[in-house]
Amino acid sequence: MIAEILNIGTELLLGHVVDTNSAYIGRKLAGIGVNLYHKATVGDNKPRARAALREALSRADLVIITGGLGPTEDDITREIVSEVFGIPQIHSDEAMNHASSLLKGRGHQSLSSLERLAQVPEGATLIPNPRGTACGFIVEKMGKQVICLPGVPGEMEAMMELTVIPYLARLEGGGEIITSRTLRICGPGEAEIEDRIRHLLHGKSNPTIAPLVSLGEVMLRITAKASSLEEADVMIHRIETELRECLGQDIYGTEDDEIQHSVVRLLRERNLTCAVAESVTGGLISHKLTEVPGCSKVLGLQVTSYSNDAKVKVLGVPKEDVRRHGAVSREVAIRMAKGILCLSGADISISTTGVAGPTKDDHMHSIGLVFIGLAWKYGVTCGRFEFFGTRSEIKERAAKRSLDLLRRHLLSHH
Amino acid sequence: MIAEILNIGTELLLGHVVDTNSAYIGRKLAGIGVNLYHKATVGDNKPRARAALREALSRADLVIITGGLGPTEDDITREIVSEVFGIPQIHSDEAMNHASSLLKGRGHQSLSSLERLAQVPEGATLIPNPRGTACGFIVEKMGKQVICLPGVPGEMEAMMELTVIPYLARLEGGGEIITSRTLRICGPGEAEIEDRIRHLLHGKSNPTIAPLVSLGEVMLRITAKASSLEEADVMIHRIETELRECLGQDIYGTEDDEIQHSVVRLLRERNLTCAVAESVTGGLISHKLTEVPGCSKVLGLQVTSYSNDAKVKVLGVPKEDVRRHGAVSREVAIRMAKGILCLSGADISISTTGVAGPTKDDHMHSIGLVFIGLAWKYGVTCGRFEFFGTRSEIKERAAKRSLDLLRRHLLSHH
Repeated sequence: MIAEILNIGTELLLGHVVDTNSAYIGRKLAGIGVNLYHKATVGDNKPRARAALREALSRADLVIITGGLGPTEDDITREIVSEVFGIPQIHSDEAMNHASSLLKGRGHQSLSSLERLAQVPEGATLIPNPRGTACGFIVEKMGKQVICLPGVPGEMEAMMELTVIPYLARLEGGGEIITSRTLRICGPGEAEIEDRIRHLLHGKSNPTIAPLVSLGEVMLRITAKASSLEEADVMIHRIETELRECLGQDIYGTEDDEIQHSVVRLLRERNLTCAVAESVTGGLISHKLTEVPGCSKVLGLQVTSYSNDAKVKVLGVPKEDVRRHGAVSREVAIRMAKGILCLSGADISISTTGVAGPTKDDHMHSIGLVFIGLAWKYGVTCGRFEFFGTRSEIKERAAKRSLDLLRRHLLSHH
Repeated sequence: MIAEILNIGTELLLGHVVDTNSAYIGRKLAGIGVNLYHKATVGDNKPRARAALREALSRADLVIITGGLGPTEDDITREIVSEVFGIPQIHSDEAMNHASSLLKGRGHQSLSSLERLAQVPEGATLIPNPRGTACGFIVEKMGKQVICLPGVPGEMEAMMELTVIPYLARLEGGGEIITSRTLRICGPGEAEIEDRIRHLLHGKSNPTIAPLVSLGEVMLRITAKASSLEEADVMIHRIETELRECLGQDIYGTEDDEIQHSVVRLLRERNLTCAVAESVTGGLISHKLTEVPGCSKVLGLQVTSYSNDAKVKVLGVPKEDVRRHGAVSREVAIRMAKGILCLSGADISISTTGVAGPTKDDHMHSIGLVFIGLAWKYGVTCGRFEFFGTRSEIKERAAKRSLDLLRRHLLSHH
């Protein structure tokens, strides 16, 4: 099956929004062996959108349209699909009920908006939208299919996952599969990792290993091409084993795992609780941990003690330590970790203190200097780091590194 | 002038790379009044790339190609441009010297790679690349132009900035300028906002007003087209004034402002400090506030009291209130806000308690139920909300709404 993607939205042409949708769809289609040869973007303009859809249908069996499904007059996708396929639009009770039930209790409801959300081309199959008001739909005519999805990434992704991919995978059957697996590493940098796996990187064309750097971590993507998913999986598994032999505990997770997932998983497995005292990371460690369902089982208390006063009053850091060593110091990091451990009654705690910028602190420490403390029943430890980047990047790197230190501690001590 | 973008690269179709280039180019073209009506992506496949270029040239005066300029056989841009324009490729000493001087000292140099980098269509004007080995080029024939740039974002951007935009701005001359301004709103939903400004939305083609929904907020983008920037600014200012008359304090900011920027600005203007007690938002409010430089002047203390124990022990919520009303209740939200106000000595505090999911809480409250408390020297208040979405979306909506309540309180009480 040959597919194309058509994105509709003037904001994409003006560059106000970066199109992440089509990369997501591309990955999903590759995973089930659907060939994607072309993607295009046009604005909220009917003649140009119609022309683009006609062109796409002249080349491909399947066109996935994103965007233009909202309740306003700018939302032209329903109209252009109906026009190109020569099918009238009809009112769908199902789409109407879905939209009005979601809008219920949110106060104001405009009838004309609701009615637009309920219009679909006659004969279309609805695609449920678990995260938003606009349903998607599939229309088929003379062997060509069009699948329409909203442009909001979260909604589009849920609908792809739940409905579109299972539907296409059934249609598609055979064909060559491209599949990949990602290993995630926090701590060592890209150059160090490449050095350690150099003998595996060279001369490999299938599977390939691609290092990708993201904020505070490195991902290794293994990609294999084979005639079946099973065969591709075997190829990937073989390389993964070799990589794990080189990198060991530096690999904290795979695929969409983030460092907080590993930490919560480890704490739950070991039946331990943690607490967090943040200064430079400003609540980000806690935010990351609480993104993980079930986190309430392992995290009881977190404090952001941004002021010295809060460090002293709430966490019990001795005033004298702050005065003598400054808030950004090994001593204060350790006192913060001990303080929150005691206050929370948790099994293990982490603390951060540092300078996120954009200006230096009162002691003229350089921007990016961060101390990360760790305290548990039988001991304490503290690391000194120099992170780089913007305020927001320094927070992100320091939060990830803190969680990774906690993870490594759990692996080696518990 | 009408332009199109053509991206060449199989990695873009497979979704291994998100295309940020064309959003960047779109913004730059809009800034000098070049109309961009269409963008397309194809893989490293000559017949399909040729066809896409021919199509683009049939509609537009200018096609900007990114990608496919590297030194390998996969890099097909030079060939397809030569073929479509019917111009031979020739060797450019200038391109060769540039590439070899950059590669000097980097160890391995392959002559055939170098030679590929030196090939350009005859008559092309070279575009210097200050950040990489591959020069770009401009080819013109029969009133149509093609500009070829590398796909690496940093290289492409430097070349756009230094050469392409000045060149196009000169060509374009008295062309039209498109510029836009965004107003940001937290609180009312899209449908309600559209109803309140319906008389401004209709029959307007210049400037246009486009509502864009993002998680927990709505943006209104005003876009004007005029012969000069000054004229466009006047048009935008006129509409903005009318929108502000309809929406008043619901507009919290403009452009890239986020709700936390407004809050920190207001607190600093009024010389006030705040404190935060989070349960359901898990540190996200604090994380957002501490993203703003200078936040340490206004935020002293934040606590994530995820467990009931922490609510009681650290924030002083009476055990009896938790037992009788449950942790997710108006009573507990108010006690949390009062508790953190007292502990921190801040002027105003906010608190959140609710159910982020994916499962209901012990009292079988529905997912998305959130109470937001606000306490200050002379009073307390609490709002009840039902947010929808994933765990992470509920946290995001609740955090933004909390900050917006704080903002509205500061505007009306201080």
